[in-house]
Amino acid sequence: MLTFAIERDAQEPLYMQIKRHLIRQIENGILLPGDRLPATRDLAEQMGVARISVVAAYDDLKAEGYITSQVGRGTFVLDRAGDFGGPAPTAGASRAPNAELRDLLALAERPGVINFSHGTPADEFLPVGLMREAIDAVLTRDGSAAIAYEVPEGYPPLRDLVARRLTRLGIHATASEVLVTGGCQQALDLAVQALLKPGDVLLTANPTYAGMLDIAHARGVGVVGAPVDEDGMQTDKLEDLILQHRPRLLYVAPTYHNPTGTIMPTHRRRHLIELAGRYHLPVLEDGVYEDLHFSGEIPPPLKALDENGLVLYASSFSKILLPGMRIGYIVVSEGLGQRLARVKRAADICTPALNQRAVHLVLESGRLYEQIAAAKNACRERRDAMLSALARYLPQARWQTPKGGLYLWAGLPHDGPTATELYLHALRLGVAFAMGPLFYTGDEGAYFMRLNIAAYAPDQIEEGIRRLGNAWRELASGHVAAQNGSPTPFV
Amino acid sequence: MLTFAIERDAQEPLYMQIKRHLIRQIENGILLPGDRLPATRDLAEQMGVARISVVAAYDDLKAEGYITSQVGRGTFVLDRAGDFGGPAPTAGASRAPNAELRDLLALAERPGVINFSHGTPADEFLPVGLMREAIDAVLTRDGSAAIAYEVPEGYPPLRDLVARRLTRLGIHATASEVLVTGGCQQALDLAVQALLKPGDVLLTANPTYAGMLDIAHARGVGVVGAPVDEDGMQTDKLEDLILQHRPRLLYVAPTYHNPTGTIMPTHRRRHLIELAGRYHLPVLEDGVYEDLHFSGEIPPPLKALDENGLVLYASSFSKILLPGMRIGYIVVSEGLGQRLARVKRAADICTPALNQRAVHLVLESGRLYEQIAAAKNACRERRDAMLSALARYLPQARWQTPKGGLYLWAGLPHDGPTATELYLHALRLGVAFAMGPLFYTGDEGAYFMRLNIAAYAPDQIEEGIRRLGNAWRELASGHVAAQNGSPTPFV
Repeated sequence: MLTFAIERDAQEPLYMQIKRHLIRQIENGILLPGDRLPATRDLAEQMGVARISVVAAYDDLKAEGYITSQVGRGTFVLDRAGDFGGPAPTAGASRAPNAELRDLLALAERPGVINFSHGTPADEFLPVGLMREAIDAVLTRDGSAAIAYEVPEGYPPLRDLVARRLTRLGIHATASEVLVTGGCQQALDLAVQALLKPGDVLLTANPTYAGMLDIAHARGVGVVGAPVDEDGMQTDKLEDLILQHRPRLLYVAPTYHNPTGTIMPTHRRRHLIELAGRYHLPVLEDGVYEDLHFSGEIPPPLKALDENGLVLYASSFSKILLPGMRIGYIVVSEGLGQRLARVKRAADICTPALNQRAVHLVLESGRLYEQIAAAKNACRERRDAMLSALARYLPQARWQTPKGGLYLWAGLPHDGPTATELYLHALRLGVAFAMGPLFYTGDEGAYFMRLNIAAYAPDQIEEGIRRLGNAWRELASGHVAAQNGSPTPFV
Repeated sequence: MLTFAIERDAQEPLYMQIKRHLIRQIENGILLPGDRLPATRDLAEQMGVARISVVAAYDDLKAEGYITSQVGRGTFVLDRAGDFGGPAPTAGASRAPNAELRDLLALAERPGVINFSHGTPADEFLPVGLMREAIDAVLTRDGSAAIAYEVPEGYPPLRDLVARRLTRLGIHATASEVLVTGGCQQALDLAVQALLKPGDVLLTANPTYAGMLDIAHARGVGVVGAPVDEDGMQTDKLEDLILQHRPRLLYVAPTYHNPTGTIMPTHRRRHLIELAGRYHLPVLEDGVYEDLHFSGEIPPPLKALDENGLVLYASSFSKILLPGMRIGYIVVSEGLGQRLARVKRAADICTPALNQRAVHLVLESGRLYEQIAAAKNACRERRDAMLSALARYLPQARWQTPKGGLYLWAGLPHDGPTATELYLHALRLGVAFAMGPLFYTGDEGAYFMRLNIAAYAPDQIEEGIRRLGNAWRELASGHVAAQNGSPTPFV
C-alpha cells in the first residue's frame, strides 16, 4: 500500500514523512521505474492529510530526480539505474509493448462507441445456456470433485477428447501429449518459458499477436519479425533471419493469422517445416482460430506435416465461444509436457476443475458444434456486411477478404491520416478499431487497422464503417496529398 | 510428439532412423536432461515398428552417453552440458524439489488408503450446492459477460469485497490495491516474478510450503531457510541470515504455518516487521489459512502491522472450501499491482470471469461463512479425534495442538524409523501422510510428518492413526534402539 502511518505529533513535517516513505519504497524496489504514483488528491484523501502535503512531497521528489510528472498522464517513478543497490528491473518492471496505444484503446470502452478493436467473438454468440446446463450436470455428476483441485496436466477425459478431436485436423496425439492450460495464452507462455531463457530470440510474423509481444516482454525474450504478405508469413525470408538471429523458437499462426487474417498455403507450410528441421528450430503453432472457418479448404496444420517432432501445437476454446472459461491446451511430447506441467504447477497448481469438466461435457455432447456452426454463419454474414460497407464508405482503403477467423486487416492510403490519427478522430464520431502499430515488433504499421468482423450485427457494422469513412474523409480533406500511390493491405 | 515418420524403404535401418531422430530431439532441446523417454514397448507400438528397433536405438544412445536407464524408474535423457550448443536449461528443465518423495506420495492415491497427506479441506465440506446456485444466479444476471474475458486485475466488485473483508483483520486496502489471481499459488508466483530475478535469494521458514519451493525452482531463485519452533519462524535468527544472504524477499505464513501449524506471536511479528524495515526487505505474507480458526485469538496479520508498505498480503478462498475455483488475491501497492497485472496478462490474460463472479456472489450473500463455521466445528472435532488417536496409538511421537488450519506436525523418535521408512511401510497397512523432507530446503526433516487433520470423519481418523501406530511399532521393533532421546516436534 502506498498509504502508511503518519505520525501527526512527530517533529518531522507531514510532507517530509511522505517523501521519506516514498523514497524508501523506491529504494527497496516496491516502486519501480515507470510505476505511476496516485494523483495527489487521491493519496491525500487516502491518508487523511491535506493535499498540499502530498504536493510538497512530490515536488521535492521531482527536484531530487526520483519522479517526474507528465501533463495528462500522471506522475511516474524515474529510472535511477540502481543508485541505491535496489533490485534490477524484474518481470513486469517496464510498461507493456505499445503501452501508449493500449491506453488509447481503453478510450473506446464507453457507451455509444461501435468498437471493432476487440479480439473476442460477439457476446450474443456465447453459449450461456449450454454452459449453465453443463456446469449443473457436472456438479450433479461429480459433486465436490468438480470444485476440488485437478492435476496440473489437466482433467484426463478432456485431454483424451482433445487428442481425439485433433485427428480431424490430421494431428495424431495421445491424451498424455495434451496439457490443459489457462487459455491459449498460458499455453504459449509456458512454451516460451520452457524453451527460451531471457536474452534468447523468438522469431515471429510481423505483425503478430499482441499477446505474444506481452509474453516476450514479460520473459525478457528478444523478438525478431518476419514479413507477412497476403499468404501469411513469407517463408522465403526466414532462412536469413534464422542465420542472422539464431532464434530458439519460431511462433506462427498459419491459419487466420492475427491480425492479418491470412492463411498460409501448404507449400509455405512445408517450406517452414523443412527449415525448422534443417536448423533444429522448435515451432510453436497457434491454432486458436482454426475452428472459425467460413469457406474453402484449410491446409493441414504444421503439426500434421511435422515428421521431426519439432512442432508444439497450442490452441483453446476461447475463440469458439468460450473466452471467459479460460480453457486452452498444448500438444507436445511427453517429456516437454512434463516440463511444462512443472512450470504450470508452480504458476497456478491447476486450471479450475469445474471449467475443465464443463467444457469437456459441452464438447462431448456435440452441442457446442451446432452453436459454432450457427455462429459461423452469422460471422460470414457480418463479414460480408463489413466488406460491402467498406467498399461503400471507405473505398480508399485496401483489404483482403477473410475466409475465417475474427479479423479484417485494412491498409490506409499513405497520403491520408495514419491509423492512430484516424482512431482519435473516429472515437469522436463513435467508432473504434485496433491500430496497426499494436501488432508490430517495431515502429511499423502506421497505416493499418484491424477490424473485428464478428462483433456487431450487420446494421451496426454498416453504421460503424460509415462513421469510420466520415472520420477518414474529414481528416484526409485536411491533409495535403503528398503522394497518390495505391495502398496495399500489406507492407 | 516422440513419434515421427519412418521411411520403411530407406537404406538406413529403422533403429538408426529412430536413434537419429532422438539425437535431434535432444540437440534441439525438445528433450532435455532428466526427461523420461517412453518405454520401448510403447514407442514401438506408437510407431508401428518392432520393439527390437527401439531397443537397439536406445542401446546405441546409452552407449554414446545420451540417455540412461534406471531399473524400475525408466529411461532418461542425460545432461551433456550443452555439448551441442543446444539451449541451456530453461524453466521446468530439472525435476521439482523432492521429486522422488513426490513420486512416492502418488502411491497413496489408491482405494483403501486413509490418506492424511493432502493440503485440501475435506471433500464433503465443499459447498457444491452454494456454488451451483451462485453460478446459476451469475449466468442469469450477467449473461454472456459471465463467460467473456475479464480485465487482468480482476472483477471489480470482487476486488472491492476483498478489500472490505480485510478490514476485519486490520488490513486497510482499497479495491485498486487488490489483484485477483488464479489461487494463492499464482499470487505468490507473480510476487516472486515481480520482485526477484534468477539468482536472487528468497528467505523463508524452514520447513516451508512445498509450493513455494516449486516457485523458487521454476523461477531460478535461491532459497534460504530460517528455523521454526513452536512459535513459528524464529525471528531472532533472521538478521544474521539477512546480512549473510542478502535476500530480496521474505516469505512467511505467520498464522497456521504450513506444514507446522504454528502461530507466530505478536512480538515476533513486530520484530519481523522491524527487521524488514531496517533492511528494506519486502515481505510476502501468506494468509491462506487465516479463516480456518478454531479457538483463541489470532494476532494481527503482518500487513496490519506494516507502516512502511513493505508487506504484500496473499491469500485465497481455496482453503475455505473452494480449492478448485482457483480464486486467490494479493494486496499490494497500486504501482506494484500494475507490474503484477502485466505479468498476469502475459501469463493467462485473466482469471475466469465466471469463477470470480460466482465466488463474489457466494461471499456477498454471507452464506459461505455459515458453511465455513460448520466446517470449522467439524474440523475441530476431527482435530480432537486425531489428537486422542495419536495419544493412544502413537504415543512415541510428539506434536503441538493445532489451533486452526489443516495440519498437525508430528516428530518421530530418532531411534525409530524415519518418516519415509514409516511412509512406505504404512502404505502397506493402508495409511499415508506427507513426509517431513518434502517441506525443507535441504535434507532435513527425516523424522517429521505432516498430517491433514480435516480430511476424514473421526472414526476414519482413528482407524488411520491405529494403522500408523502399528506400522511404526512393527518397524521400531526391528530397529536397534540407538538412543532414547525424547523427540520434539521441532528441529
